[in-house]
Amino acid sequence: MSAGKQLKLGFILHGVGRTWGDWRHPDAQPDASTNFAFYKRQAQVAEKGKFDFLFVADSVYITEKSSPHYLNRFEPLTILSALAGATSHIGLVGTLTVSYSEPYNVARQFASLDHISGGRAGWNVVTSWLEGSAANYSKAQHLAHDQRYRLAAEYLDVVQGLWDSWEDDALVHDKESGVFFDPTKLNTLDHKGEFFQVKGPLNIARSPQGQPVIFQAGASEDGKNFAAKHADAIFVGQDDLAEAQAYYADVKARAAGFGRDPEKVFILPGVAPVVGATEAEAEAKYQELANLVSIENALSMLGRPFNDHDFSQYDLDAPFPDVTAVGLNSNQSSVLKIVAAAKADNLTLRQVAQRFATPRGNFVGTPEQIADKFQQWLDAKAADGFVFFEALPKQLDVFVETVVPLLQARGLLRRKYEGETFRDNLGLEVPVNRFTAAKSAKEVA
Amino acid sequence: MSAGKQLKLGFILHGVGRTWGDWRHPDAQPDASTNFAFYKRQAQVAEKGKFDFLFVADSVYITEKSSPHYLNRFEPLTILSALAGATSHIGLVGTLTVSYSEPYNVARQFASLDHISGGRAGWNVVTSWLEGSAANYSKAQHLAHDQRYRLAAEYLDVVQGLWDSWEDDALVHDKESGVFFDPTKLNTLDHKGEFFQVKGPLNIARSPQGQPVIFQAGASEDGKNFAAKHADAIFVGQDDLAEAQAYYADVKARAAGFGRDPEKVFILPGVAPVVGATEAEAEAKYQELANLVSIENALSMLGRPFNDHDFSQYDLDAPFPDVTAVGLNSNQSSVLKIVAAAKADNLTLRQVAQRFATPRGNFVGTPEQIADKFQQWLDAKAADGFVFFEALPKQLDVFVETVVPLLQARGLLRRKYEGETFRDNLGLEVPVNRFTAAKSAKEVA
Repeated sequence: MSAGKQLKLGFILHGVGRTWGDWRHPDAQPDASTNFAFYKRQAQVAEKGKFDFLFVADSVYITEKSSPHYLNRFEPLTILSALAGATSHIGLVGTLTVSYSEPYNVARQFASLDHISGGRAGWNVVTSWLEGSAANYSKAQHLAHDQRYRLAAEYLDVVQGLWDSWEDDALVHDKESGVFFDPTKLNTLDHKGEFFQVKGPLNIARSPQGQPVIFQAGASEDGKNFAAKHADAIFVGQDDLAEAQAYYADVKARAAGFGRDPEKVFILPGVAPVVGATEAEAEAKYQELANLVSIENALSMLGRPFNDHDFSQYDLDAPFPDVTAVGLNSNQSSVLKIVAAAKADNLTLRQVAQRFATPRGNFVGTPEQIADKFQQWLDAKAADGFVFFEALPKQLDVFVETVVPLLQARGLLRRKYEGETFRDNLGLEVPVNRFTAAKSAKEVA
Repeated sequence: MSAGKQLKLGFILHGVGRTWGDWRHPDAQPDASTNFAFYKRQAQVAEKGKFDFLFVADSVYITEKSSPHYLNRFEPLTILSALAGATSHIGLVGTLTVSYSEPYNVARQFASLDHISGGRAGWNVVTSWLEGSAANYSKAQHLAHDQRYRLAAEYLDVVQGLWDSWEDDALVHDKESGVFFDPTKLNTLDHKGEFFQVKGPLNIARSPQGQPVIFQAGASEDGKNFAAKHADAIFVGQDDLAEAQAYYADVKARAAGFGRDPEKVFILPGVAPVVGATEAEAEAKYQELANLVSIENALSMLGRPFNDHDFSQYDLDAPFPDVTAVGLNSNQSSVLKIVAAAKADNLTLRQVAQRFATPRGNFVGTPEQIADKFQQWLDAKAADGFVFFEALPKQLDVFVETVVPLLQARGLLRRKYEGETFRDNLGLEVPVNRFTAAKSAKEVA
């Protein structure tokens, strides 16, 4: 039993396009990905369902072969800021790549979002896995995988240092004496590293959470270490219970190895529930979705993690071709997983493409079955919660109406938000300001 | 007479700190600069007053000598996105520097804001004039003045090209046939220039305005040419009628010289009205404000455009020192203006600092006097409208309650918004997509 432990739940705002076909569903709004009214409504439904956070994914490179949700999408910081005003308690987590941005700008934008939202910002730190991205940023080439993680660690340290520029009580605002702030509590970072030289200070006060919450999606060896060392929450692609348990044990042990409390590192697999009143209805809904993708589109979508590799050149019904090499400096962990699954089940290219384009997942069934499975994963130490993708239109509504009350009745999900900030609701403390801490240490010594 | 011409009005959201002392005013909220409720209320009052736009200024470098509104402020894109949801018709103009950002990211964020707001985004293109900024961005030094303007022109061309990536009817969304978009209407920019190489396409559909509105604040020779060539609206520091007329004639002529319709380039001086029921009351309000600044703070504020030059080393009551050189690669036009005014009026350092710290401006008086002056400037071809700074707390409310009805009665300000988008309200057309235009030209040829 999970002994009073509750699930952490996130909802991915992705408009249309998780699969190649979902926008064709009769109930789908095909322009959902840049429709603010659509995003606002989903955000409010997720908040009604007492989800911990909204999550906006991202990418910075498309070609005409890209799938619908890559082609046309809101930029994360702008849409999350707009949603800050339309919600009151739910966390707002945005993806932003360290490969093609400046730490000073990123630190400002997340701090600003944290102020605007009253302490609900989260940053999903990614390194970008699409090689083509470099061409949009005046760069000759994308950094190699290991370099990207070294850069990410330095980048995050700079951003977190900038967030501490102002100590909590630095802005005095004493009208009588005319003292606006205490200059001894405004700190210059003076960072000089391998990739960045950033002086600081940041031009925005420390935000309500002290530091926005850090997300990561580490599946490679470098990624797992980065996540275990730095992330408050880890968003993973695990779909199989045993695999998820292994990942969970591995990353929690790594977190402990870095001197962290493993209970404060949340592991959250992405799931795309398909909920029906009966098992047959749920299954029929999934089939309806899968039928909306043509084989051409499925091949194109499969090409994405392999650096947009052209799979149409191969025999559809022959065994899956040997293409591991073309994807290795891309989304390495996805590539290895696809290749391994193809080998294990002896799949043809057609089968691999169909499964990839419309993943069925492990969460198709009745409300009771979905609630059971969530509980099972929590109890089995496979997950601390989930990040919810909407598999097909209205599934968020169905989930909030039918599964959420079951989870609440079982004590697995809050009935009301515990506090005001995202950290409050996750049970995470406000980090001590690094400059305040350094001064206290000096005084003690 | 202005023959039916109406004023364009903007409101600067700056929290506290236009002057060094305004936060000390009894009615001031000293934390206003990062207080979302404060921003939201001001935005809604300005919209009630039928202003054309909200404007958020910016900077990316502070020191402990910086003035209150530099020290702690929202980042423009995040706060404007949040305000998009709290307003329905007013334009949302944000400042963003081309010196320390990536055109692909900036194009996305403004396009995203334009989608979120239903077509109300504007970008104030700046090159940053604070030399210290480079140290926050891993750069050895700030670009020289002329290089910055060459870079700005290339940068803007890249951003505008990216905004046209998707032709207006590219997203077909045909559920029946399964065609999500027409690939012949998704265009790759393939920009290769002196400063940037950007392939494209942008990963967001063309926005409701086609292109967000472009603002600029050009006062130097390079700046005026840039503004006349590229800007839809120009925000200037003119405060003297004759000077403003000369600037107006100059820039409109330059715009015509670049083949543009001068009527579609709006020149908008910044003003800080102090409105009182009587002239004496208005004057007393100004004096109350000026008395809130200490001479130490006034000197510090004056140092800002001179690269944070330390003015405390000079005799306060001797003639203004010869410091032109230390500010020339900074905010050149401000520096030259301060020095010229000091010489013309034979001012001491103390006098220069006081005038700089609390500019009185030309708009102190009764509602009728302010309305008269607005009309005078419009008729005299000194301005197409104004950008309103709040000189002291509640001045926006006073202006909307007392001056706006007078302007409306005289036919100088709308009683309701003309259309849905910022362009609609300004009377600016949606620009033709450059790729669509190129194809049409080819077909004709």
